[in-house]
Amino acid sequence: MVHPPYFMGIDGGGSKCKAILVDQKNNILGQGTSGPANPRFGLAQAMDSVLNAAQAALIDANLSTLSLSDIIAGIGLAGINLPYYYQQVLEWPHPFMKRHLTTDLHIACVGAHQKQDGAVIIVGTGSCGFSLCQGEKTELGGYGFPHGDKGSGAWLGLQAVSQALNALDGVEQKTRLCAPLLNTLQVNDAIGLSETLSEGTSATFAKLAPIVFDCANQNDPVSIAIIQDGAHYLDQLAKKLIADHQLPLVLIGGLKEAFLPWLEPFTLAHLQDSQASSEMGAIFWARSQDQSNTPVTFKGNI
Amino acid sequence: MVHPPYFMGIDGGGSKCKAILVDQKNNILGQGTSGPANPRFGLAQAMDSVLNAAQAALIDANLSTLSLSDIIAGIGLAGINLPYYYQQVLEWPHPFMKRHLTTDLHIACVGAHQKQDGAVIIVGTGSCGFSLCQGEKTELGGYGFPHGDKGSGAWLGLQAVSQALNALDGVEQKTRLCAPLLNTLQVNDAIGLSETLSEGTSATFAKLAPIVFDCANQNDPVSIAIIQDGAHYLDQLAKKLIADHQLPLVLIGGLKEAFLPWLEPFTLAHLQDSQASSEMGAIFWARSQDQSNTPVTFKGNI
Repeated sequence: MVHPPYFMGIDGGGSKCKAILVDQKNNILGQGTSGPANPRFGLAQAMDSVLNAAQAALIDANLSTLSLSDIIAGIGLAGINLPYYYQQVLEWPHPFMKRHLTTDLHIACVGAHQKQDGAVIIVGTGSCGFSLCQGEKTELGGYGFPHGDKGSGAWLGLQAVSQALNALDGVEQKTRLCAPLLNTLQVNDAIGLSETLSEGTSATFAKLAPIVFDCANQNDPVSIAIIQDGAHYLDQLAKKLIADHQLPLVLIGGLKEAFLPWLEPFTLAHLQDSQASSEMGAIFWARSQDQSNTPVTFKGNI
Repeated sequence: MVHPPYFMGIDGGGSKCKAILVDQKNNILGQGTSGPANPRFGLAQAMDSVLNAAQAALIDANLSTLSLSDIIAGIGLAGINLPYYYQQVLEWPHPFMKRHLTTDLHIACVGAHQKQDGAVIIVGTGSCGFSLCQGEKTELGGYGFPHGDKGSGAWLGLQAVSQALNALDGVEQKTRLCAPLLNTLQVNDAIGLSETLSEGTSATFAKLAPIVFDCANQNDPVSIAIIQDGAHYLDQLAKKLIADHQLPLVLIGGLKEAFLPWLEPFTLAHLQDSQASSEMGAIFWARSQDQSNTPVTFKGNI
């Protein structure tokens, strides 16, 4: 049976990978989800996750005549803003008819603004910003833990723990943060806190971020200062991305709701709801690449 | 031949281990140096370093009738402020006649103040404070990277990199830090900086600390703010340690000289030169333990 190529959109992040299979009108035929797909934390695992999500979407669609070799995939992956990992994934022998590869940020932006110019800020475990404007991509932040990703969950958790340790020592301002941090991590003192976190990853620290918002909402000055510092960074990201073009902005990620009350009027004035998912963004983008016959290149950060 | 027991003092830190062998009047008979001795980063390696330094000191002393089983050792180790690692070292089958075990901070303080009451602040790759006053030990900070050790080299480097990345993105204040950080790490841009540091340890970040002092001395406001924040923490440590007892304070570590111009008059007014090395502190302490027949116990942080 001859049929027009099917498109699949794949969004691979640090904790999970999602795939959708669509028909010619972008109606969703099947969906699949799998594990971590950031090649920075293991290429083999990341590529397994991409395959597993793709296969799961295919099975979900229940189209027995279809295989991955009939499908054009748009794939957006975390971590491949770093050229080394982009190259690794590019060399991976994929099973698709064609494969268009870009970053998770890029497809998030294309989805959120339904192919129109716009900006996104992602604030979850990490933080970063991205805009598409007149064919030009801008990517800001996302440099990782512990030196980057200001305002992110990992960053908030790290600031909170640092302040709490010094408060427990009695050498810095007292803070409400101490008790809930000790309770959450089930330790008794500063030594216990530091021992528990000595091998902590960004995910470990990000789990503590809700405590900072809770304490700030109870008027803890230390927590308020941490969140204001993070929110100021997100506002600066927004200003830089929106720039002179008055781009609409979509905020994405687990800390979106928590940060809303702390952002500047300028940022809030440009906020819009997301119009489509990242996976759908991957499909929009793959279709545009396929029609234009533009060679698939990726230039990394601008 | 029967002889009174010889004493050996051993100071084991994160990068090296030093041992001295002394006669009954604490004249140094032999010295030895070996590798890393912090059991947090590997018990086997740390214990090898202790043995190697001890053997080297014995060989240096050229006393052919002497073996480690004739020697009473005072050993101060980094990392064993955490009870888990203290217990591991305590269970190690040591070859000495007796072995008195405590933290590197403790022997540094006993050495610096020649057994008298006093306080020490260590500021190198890490930072921490310790005091001995009327038999009571106080230990502050030293909680590790990236959440602790404010004011340390690792902390200074981390702050500098964070600020530089955001300045390179154009979302935070410009800083002189950018150019020397990129040059030192031999990278061209923010992506390169973040890629190079993505597996960075405290030692990696600490190597960047001199850049922060250089830029501060060239009136870079961002660098000045970082150093003032770190210096304020060290001043607070000093105040807490000196407390109501007007203890003398000794500053130890690779960043001591660089920080001196940034400290408060109160801190500077209590500063003294160190009177003896940490290894000699280990010997003073081992002798006092041996005379007093006090059971060797360690209570961790107060």
